[in-house]
Amino acid sequence: MSEHTDTSKHRDGGERPDLRDLAFNSEGLIPAIVQEDSTGEVLMMAWMNRESLEKTLLSGCTHFWSRSRARLWQKGEESGNTQVVRSIAYDCDGDTLLIKVQQEGEGVACHTGERSCFFRSLT
Amino acid sequence: MSEHTDTSKHRDGGERPDLRDLAFNSEGLIPAIVQEDSTGEVLMMAWMNRESLEKTLLSGCTHFWSRSRARLWQKGEESGNTQVVRSIAYDCDGDTLLIKVQQEGEGVACHTGERSCFFRSLT
Repeated sequence: MSEHTDTSKHRDGGERPDLRDLAFNSEGLIPAIVQEDSTGEVLMMAWMNRESLEKTLLSGCTHFWSRSRARLWQKGEESGNTQVVRSIAYDCDGDTLLIKVQQEGEGVACHTGERSCFFRSLT
Repeated sequence: MSEHTDTSKHRDGGERPDLRDLAFNSEGLIPAIVQEDSTGEVLMMAWMNRESLEKTLLSGCTHFWSRSRARLWQKGEESGNTQVVRSIAYDCDGDTLLIKVQQEGEGVACHTGERSCFFRSLT
């Protein structure tokens, strides 16, 4: 039985989403844009491998792959600033994810203490 | 005179923005998230090299680097669906851009005719 016919249940009782439309890069990674669902503010961009995406889908909280630390991490695992997933979309090329979340904890996504990682302007 | 002391003027008459805080990857690229300024809708994600970012800053319209075609392109150069830049921010690691735009033309960012490239749901 291939992974694509795996009948493991998602936490909401539905079938596991089909990841075949996704194009992971040569390192097995896909960029994930994280957006605050209620305000539309873009909070951060991080990378996922298949395992972190599956953990995100199963747990309902964002998990990423740290390229610098070479390990899986749950957003907020130390700070408490976890992210509850509201929806996950993917783009026309299947090579980028857009994850809408409810930012928990102090409402802070960035490790600097800023709400969004995009707090510096180039223009 | 290094490029960082270049006094070339930006189109609004100000100094050219300093790109030293940006971390282009090993291919000389940086991902750019494009967001509709008025609604917060994330429209697309594409890649920029230094030249496309400079063209974007100088022209005020988004330019990207196509990895598949290995060439610079202006968003909407064929379709007319250009993007007027409202602001450009960069993240805490300096390795991702967030570009807020006014989507011109038919208000469509995706080559499929959808407004946003993120029209398919995984969840």
